[in-house]
Amino acid sequence: VKTILAAAVAIASTIGLPGGSARGAAPNVVILLADDLGYGDLGCYGHPTIATPNLDQMAREGLRLTSFYAAPACTPARATLLTGRYAPLAGLPNVLGPDATHGIAERELTLAEALKGRGYRTMAVGKWHLGHAEPRHLPLANGFDAYFGLLYSNDMMPPWVETGKPLELWRGNGPIERPVEQSALTARYTDEAVRFIQGAKGEPFFLHVAYTFPHVPLHASERFRGRSRAGLYGDVVEEIDWSAGRILETLREEGLEDRTLVIFTSDNGPWSNMPDRMFRGDVIKKWDAGSAGLLRGAKGTTFEGGVRVPCIARWPGRIPAGRVSGQIVATMDLFATALALAGAPAPADRPIDGLDLWPLLSGAGESPRRECFYFLGTRLEGIREGRWKLRAPDLVEPRADRRREDGLELFDLEADPGERFNLAAARPELVERLGRRMAEFAAAATGDGARRR
Amino acid sequence: VKTILAAAVAIASTIGLPGGSARGAAPNVVILLADDLGYGDLGCYGHPTIATPNLDQMAREGLRLTSFYAAPACTPARATLLTGRYAPLAGLPNVLGPDATHGIAERELTLAEALKGRGYRTMAVGKWHLGHAEPRHLPLANGFDAYFGLLYSNDMMPPWVETGKPLELWRGNGPIERPVEQSALTARYTDEAVRFIQGAKGEPFFLHVAYTFPHVPLHASERFRGRSRAGLYGDVVEEIDWSAGRILETLREEGLEDRTLVIFTSDNGPWSNMPDRMFRGDVIKKWDAGSAGLLRGAKGTTFEGGVRVPCIARWPGRIPAGRVSGQIVATMDLFATALALAGAPAPADRPIDGLDLWPLLSGAGESPRRECFYFLGTRLEGIREGRWKLRAPDLVEPRADRRREDGLELFDLEADPGERFNLAAARPELVERLGRRMAEFAAAATGDGARRR
Repeated sequence: VKTILAAAVAIASTIGLPGGSARGAAPNVVILLADDLGYGDLGCYGHPTIATPNLDQMAREGLRLTSFYAAPACTPARATLLTGRYAPLAGLPNVLGPDATHGIAERELTLAEALKGRGYRTMAVGKWHLGHAEPRHLPLANGFDAYFGLLYSNDMMPPWVETGKPLELWRGNGPIERPVEQSALTARYTDEAVRFIQGAKGEPFFLHVAYTFPHVPLHASERFRGRSRAGLYGDVVEEIDWSAGRILETLREEGLEDRTLVIFTSDNGPWSNMPDRMFRGDVIKKWDAGSAGLLRGAKGTTFEGGVRVPCIARWPGRIPAGRVSGQIVATMDLFATALALAGAPAPADRPIDGLDLWPLLSGAGESPRRECFYFLGTRLEGIREGRWKLRAPDLVEPRADRRREDGLELFDLEADPGERFNLAAARPELVERLGRRMAEFAAAATGDGARRR
Repeated sequence: VKTILAAAVAIASTIGLPGGSARGAAPNVVILLADDLGYGDLGCYGHPTIATPNLDQMAREGLRLTSFYAAPACTPARATLLTGRYAPLAGLPNVLGPDATHGIAERELTLAEALKGRGYRTMAVGKWHLGHAEPRHLPLANGFDAYFGLLYSNDMMPPWVETGKPLELWRGNGPIERPVEQSALTARYTDEAVRFIQGAKGEPFFLHVAYTFPHVPLHASERFRGRSRAGLYGDVVEEIDWSAGRILETLREEGLEDRTLVIFTSDNGPWSNMPDRMFRGDVIKKWDAGSAGLLRGAKGTTFEGGVRVPCIARWPGRIPAGRVSGQIVATMDLFATALALAGAPAPADRPIDGLDLWPLLSGAGESPRRECFYFLGTRLEGIREGRWKLRAPDLVEPRADRRREDGLELFDLEADPGERFNLAAARPELVERLGRRMAEFAAAATGDGARRR
């Protein structure tokens, strides 16, 4: 894979600061990624009834981010995490269904490939969702030494999605269980992760655990079912909290805490109004949904509730404990940061949207990110710059019967994180400036398509 | 005042456990009450941009409640706090305007009177809002030795409210500044509170600080204006956080920490859709409003966002540190708890709705409260029992053109704190049972009017 990139990679410069002495030895990287977990779903983000003691403690021991941006849906969020690029620019703007034939492009350099190039052992556990029709789309062809999980979402089966394929659990390049027993998944993912860490034997590793839940249909193991105060959704999130705790505990037991960067986050916001088709079969209930907390909107929108999610970073001794930051950070920055920490070169033949967060994580400085863009599919719907957010879904490419200025909203996200007060009429100069920046970015991305994609 | 109560009080039993040896010496009681502060407005309740380090620390050192119920508006919340009774049953169901002629009834036993009867020095600082037309309605006639503050809300002046009265600052029984300079209020309230504590000289005291803000119009002192990330609303809340910190610091300096129960809470939820009249004069902006966090609704409604507010209780050595509880607690319970701690008898000639929270506060047990009722004015609109809430605004007394079942909603507040999923159709037996309990309570309150009021 990606042998065509070898030359480009070889001549590329590393991102940001040198990965060597200033940061110490290259750390292990563990990414724990929940599915459809909302901004408000953890205790440390204010949920009153879901108990997440392990993640709350992880936050107390590390850095909790309150302006962390993922994507409005699963596939684009994962594409961004693994390529360091906005999803449409990495060619995966939309969710892949079970019968999709495309997937992550061979020419992309994935985070796993980059770290593997620096001697890391790599494993992906859980949901993949970056293509499954051909071997070249699978985890093992994209930098992971090992894989155990579901290749796409757990509702991508009858009665919710029309497909002839049963939902399968895979190990490596083939199915091992068909249909999969979903209630055991979180526990089995945890076992796989624990065993992988225990087998590291001093070699650096990259572990990517992408939980199947709390995406619907919800399933908790018997041990967690009925345990939370917050119904089945709470049970499922509390099992994920347990899993995160078990993985952190394993790092402690193995003496790897001080050599491991752990990130916990989500791919997108929670369901709000699930489409009617989701209620077929009487398994999914409309209240099997998370909370975006004080944020507006939900999954599938570019309101904050759709894209802003919890993110906790922990690395004892290197990331100072107990901090909370509202600086802007986005999923692709995790890619850039991990590469920089590992001293891995980033591709020089295409723009990488991610930025190295080490100044923010280490406490030495600020997030280098001053702006981020909101895509819904291939549509550029908005921009955040500092405290300001312009939502202008038709500005760049108006839909039929829409004008460029339709639905235009300007929010001060620091004073009004709930996007309640549209200041567009009051601040035309900001609308003008941010709109221009959106158009510029879109033009560069399109006009420069060959280079970017 | 209340000499007519003397006999009744004398024969009354104390509430709950004896106040003596089991709890140690009667503590000082400090209540810090914000005005229109929403459930989501503090850092420790999940706000991403308002920084409240002092209250967050207070929460870490004490007990943070996530199901604490106030009232949907200012006057009823305060009436409940000082009488231990649901506001309509204490005769003050609605907000008092500047030209109101009624106020708290002489026959009510206030928290200040009860504690004064046990030798406490008492002071009220800040907003009163329990009547101001006659001396008998004022703080000094209701158990407070001293008073410094505004007698009602800070918008009760032109251009927002038609009245010939300027907004006055009072000390004791008379005005000392007319019109009041609002931007200095939080600092001046703090100074008064600090001086009162410093003057205690070993005598037990009850200090009631009712901040004027973040009720609109918002005013912060020069020191805080522009300081927060969250605009003027954030500035105002951060000044209140500073004030709470200064008061806690004073208790430390005076060596009184271990002898003082401090409560921080709010009277009702935040503004959401302010009426148009509020935007006269270009001082109040529609974004001068707080956040109910993940809760639905706002001030003036019986949705959770209207009535559920932050509440933190701290008493080092007696209230274990670092706990969060979702058990049901209501404003009137602060009355009952303070009386019990002080060993003060509660009136025996009327029902007291408040319950002694000591088992919950001390960590020895649970909140004794199993249910609470939601009043909007005199209208009984709902009930919470355990995890269930029935909202049935017309059940007891249907309005014209409404039927008893109109607007009926059943929520599972543990699984669905945001009141998104109406389970009334799915759980008719619960609707039936909770509706019956509402009707029973209303009948007892009305039929028993003479006794209760």
